[in-house]
Amino acid sequence: MKRYLMTPGPTPIPEKITLSMAMPIIHHRTDEFKGIFKETVDLAKEVMQTKNDVIIFASSGSGAMEAAVSNVLNKGDKAITVNAGKFGERWGKIVKAFGAEAIELTYEYGDYAKVEDIEKSIKNSKNVKAVYIQASETSTGTFHPIDEIGLMLKKKYPEVVFVVDGITAYGAIDVKTDDWNIDIGITGSQKALMLPPGLALLSVSEKAKNVISKNKNNYFYFDILGEIGAKAGKFTPAVSLVIGLNASLKMILDEGLDNVFKRHEILAKATREAVIALGLELLSKRPANSLTAIKSPLNISSTNIILKMKEYGVDISNGQGYLNGKIFRIAHLGYFYKPDILMCISVLEMVLKKMGYSANFGEGIKRAMGILLDE
Amino acid sequence: MKRYLMTPGPTPIPEKITLSMAMPIIHHRTDEFKGIFKETVDLAKEVMQTKNDVIIFASSGSGAMEAAVSNVLNKGDKAITVNAGKFGERWGKIVKAFGAEAIELTYEYGDYAKVEDIEKSIKNSKNVKAVYIQASETSTGTFHPIDEIGLMLKKKYPEVVFVVDGITAYGAIDVKTDDWNIDIGITGSQKALMLPPGLALLSVSEKAKNVISKNKNNYFYFDILGEIGAKAGKFTPAVSLVIGLNASLKMILDEGLDNVFKRHEILAKATREAVIALGLELLSKRPANSLTAIKSPLNISSTNIILKMKEYGVDISNGQGYLNGKIFRIAHLGYFYKPDILMCISVLEMVLKKMGYSANFGEGIKRAMGILLDE
Repeated sequence: MKRYLMTPGPTPIPEKITLSMAMPIIHHRTDEFKGIFKETVDLAKEVMQTKNDVIIFASSGSGAMEAAVSNVLNKGDKAITVNAGKFGERWGKIVKAFGAEAIELTYEYGDYAKVEDIEKSIKNSKNVKAVYIQASETSTGTFHPIDEIGLMLKKKYPEVVFVVDGITAYGAIDVKTDDWNIDIGITGSQKALMLPPGLALLSVSEKAKNVISKNKNNYFYFDILGEIGAKAGKFTPAVSLVIGLNASLKMILDEGLDNVFKRHEILAKATREAVIALGLELLSKRPANSLTAIKSPLNISSTNIILKMKEYGVDISNGQGYLNGKIFRIAHLGYFYKPDILMCISVLEMVLKKMGYSANFGEGIKRAMGILLDE
Repeated sequence: MKRYLMTPGPTPIPEKITLSMAMPIIHHRTDEFKGIFKETVDLAKEVMQTKNDVIIFASSGSGAMEAAVSNVLNKGDKAITVNAGKFGERWGKIVKAFGAEAIELTYEYGDYAKVEDIEKSIKNSKNVKAVYIQASETSTGTFHPIDEIGLMLKKKYPEVVFVVDGITAYGAIDVKTDDWNIDIGITGSQKALMLPPGLALLSVSEKAKNVISKNKNNYFYFDILGEIGAKAGKFTPAVSLVIGLNASLKMILDEGLDNVFKRHEILAKATREAVIALGLELLSKRPANSLTAIKSPLNISSTNIILKMKEYGVDISNGQGYLNGKIFRIAHLGYFYKPDILMCISVLEMVLKKMGYSANFGEGIKRAMGILLDE
């Protein structure tokens, strides 16, 4: 059975990247690898739109999330965490795990953070040390207004460290790390970077470094300043993944960041409008261009939709937490092009019809074709 | 740019097969390789539905076509060649190249061979030694009635050697080599066998072997009896391709021949009915399930359709010879599944609309979805 992976991580890996990782492995304490590592970090800065230091952990994205907490907060410190989905909830859990106080701003799944809520919360709480949020909340397909929040913080609370989990945003959506005042920006290898899981990237501003340097040691492996000081990883780096990352970042920059963002925007628009033309509803009030979360039609479990899609070889994702069975998520971040979206929408239409939902049959794909041919 | 290969050879190669060929190469005069080669030949017999000997040339399919002429015909011998397309025309050229007489039965491109024409031609010509035909004529997407022709020959002219080029048929369409009295059946690696080009397979009956053994030497490399006698190729075999062929034949037999044929039948039906629903016309009067040849709409050159498809990353094929610019060909033989057809049809619809052909927009893909969900 041929597989068509449409999940929000892992995402399909271009053959060019796979082959780069299949070449003979080299030792990590050689000049050759140090050169590759340095170049990779420089390329990552370009893709993350930052002049700040960027470090690479051999870990999943959650490792970098932990680093952004354990390095920045001391026990008893206060931090705002935005919980509008499973990954926002995770910020709260990590903050508590390290003995700090999480002031959680909770939103309904699908809703997005409001800049005034964050401003008010900081004002009311006093001595807030950091704000933790997602750029794109992967569990709901929502893009938070990171630009507004970052600029508000810069203006009103310049001492607060602004931490953004951009795991399903960097490389897919225009996230301007420096312009938007993001002190710590995070991403993972298995999303828009088109790699297998295993790497986390973290950018860190001078301001954040200063905060970290005054912090008590609450970590060993996830040592942000230690990684900056090391030539090619404080610990053994994931050599082949770093080599793949080098190839991936070059692919992205060769296509051009603006073109990459535009491609994601078009694919996202086609996906959204196709499902709306089918009479379905989006979960998100502010949809991200990296993935689309769709409410399952009444009386049809999204779990069954996903199982039926799998019969055609197409893998999409279920809802997480209480949304399991209620929504399904189609990814379009990374190595996706127009034909992939057309394929996915038409298979979805077939599956829905098979399951008794035959409203507007053919209208979804027609709408997608209409959008994609104009762009 | 991501590529979506929909050409009738090469066809997409499953990763499993690619990886089998990427393993360390072994020497061909070892017991290990001889074992693999023997197993591969046995698997090929199953896929070609024959108990006859099967040999493997390191050549393109045309090499096996040449072998079927040079080994069977002496100078001055008479043979019927069926010319209903570029590859049928090739039979005539090869027969003439070896100094034999080609009695060419010519059909309009898109038409198919009639059993009574062949019968009459043999009767009128006297001393016909062989009949050369395609199973599926790749240039027109036509499937000739090989079963009828084979059974007629068996009954009325049992001494005539029946040679069938099944290059775009074996492994995609049910070609019963033994039941249909095919003395020499030919295929190539880069079609339904899902491999890169470089291998030709040839099955040869006892009757044909007998004819060949009495023939004058008109060949050196393409030596059918010599290959049968050799343990693993008379000359250096294409080692990695043979290893890939072993993997490919196992994939086909694991899916089950009947399932493979059924899959091709469904994909072909969806493709044909989709383009008809769009108001387009098929070239072939007896379409093959391996590829679909479609007439370009009035005033639109198929060359431009193909170029526009390529802008979306989708590769389809032009017409050959005088059909260049007049037809386009969509392949669905080998590693193709329902999502691929849906993708290709929707991209085709977009391209046609962009080129000013907007009749029935959306109806093609809707028809394809309707067929594929019922099957």
